[in-house]
Amino acid sequence: MKSKGSLVVISGPSGSGKGTVVKKLREIMPDVALSVSATTRAPREGEIDGREYYFITRDDFEDMVAQGEILEFTSYCGNYYGTPKKEAERITGEGRDLILEIEVDGASQIKRLMPDAITIMLIPPSLSELESRLRGRGTETEQVITNRLARARDEIKLAESYDYVVVNENDGIEKCAENIRDIIRAERNKSARMTYITDTFLDN
Amino acid sequence: MKSKGSLVVISGPSGSGKGTVVKKLREIMPDVALSVSATTRAPREGEIDGREYYFITRDDFEDMVAQGEILEFTSYCGNYYGTPKKEAERITGEGRDLILEIEVDGASQIKRLMPDAITIMLIPPSLSELESRLRGRGTETEQVITNRLARARDEIKLAESYDYVVVNENDGIEKCAENIRDIIRAERNKSARMTYITDTFLDN
Repeated sequence: MKSKGSLVVISGPSGSGKGTVVKKLREIMPDVALSVSATTRAPREGEIDGREYYFITRDDFEDMVAQGEILEFTSYCGNYYGTPKKEAERITGEGRDLILEIEVDGASQIKRLMPDAITIMLIPPSLSELESRLRGRGTETEQVITNRLARARDEIKLAESYDYVVVNENDGIEKCAENIRDIIRAERNKSARMTYITDTFLDN
Repeated sequence: MKSKGSLVVISGPSGSGKGTVVKKLREIMPDVALSVSATTRAPREGEIDGREYYFITRDDFEDMVAQGEILEFTSYCGNYYGTPKKEAERITGEGRDLILEIEVDGASQIKRLMPDAITIMLIPPSLSELESRLRGRGTETEQVITNRLARARDEIKLAESYDYVVVNENDGIEKCAENIRDIIRAERNKSARMTYITDTFLDN
């Protein structure tokens, strides 16, 4: 028998660099699993149900959300995209760790649906650093930047409701990803996850 | 302001290799602190109170144990040796992590006196492996080996009361120490330990 894997939820305000960090994490932890999302958009040529996406109807998707069967979802170009709880349970049940990168407000919802989920909030080193990152993109209006900074302040107040907080220093993507790798590895040794080992030990 | 360090308690049955693993851990994590023990034995020439040991009387030592001011202690050649709670609090208060290697039954006591302590139980890969290790020493009688194995079985049943369980595979000292290092690093990112970061963030 093998121990269950973990659902690892990585989140953080816009500008915290979560996309880049998750990409780096997947490079240094190739054994971490990806999940197949459910979507309401039509399959494109060559796409296979259950490989690229689970293709489902809008009605079914909304039903699943109502039933707590979708861990988190987003809507893009009029279609829903979300992570089915069953998919996460299947992967972690096989002993593999699964990474989910989500918006800050979705983490408490996931924790409610999967209490064993490990939640990690990524934060930039400071608000002024976050401001320069957002300005550095050169694509946002002054109003958007002001709104994002205000929202980041609010989001970071939620840090205490996460299990872990990791600071994404400038030029520290690698260190930040290693930090998260340490957390995932450490969680594998939580005594509650090790009962299969101690049980086996006592049987031999 | 700096975050508090952790008191990291490493324990495991006789033959689990905790001494060797802790030595290796100190090599790969030189920033981890050592504590100065209190003892009732007389100072030897050149020993300085507060450097080698805190030299105290038997009465004072027993009083401290009764008051919950000694985290764990052992008696050797008629003298007590123990870790003062204040010493552990001083070191972790400076933001440094402190390692304590103790017998299995002392961990719950430490957790009671210092609830934030991180407890790690080290176990050998199997009972038969433990048996060959004990026999391999070539110094123990058959009776001693039988007793140690029975005790190890009982001790490993306590694994669930520890925070983490780490398996010390054969020839895996390095990996085992790295495993513990991952745990210590991950614990530094627990959100409860990161409030000084998020607070600073929101002030800037």
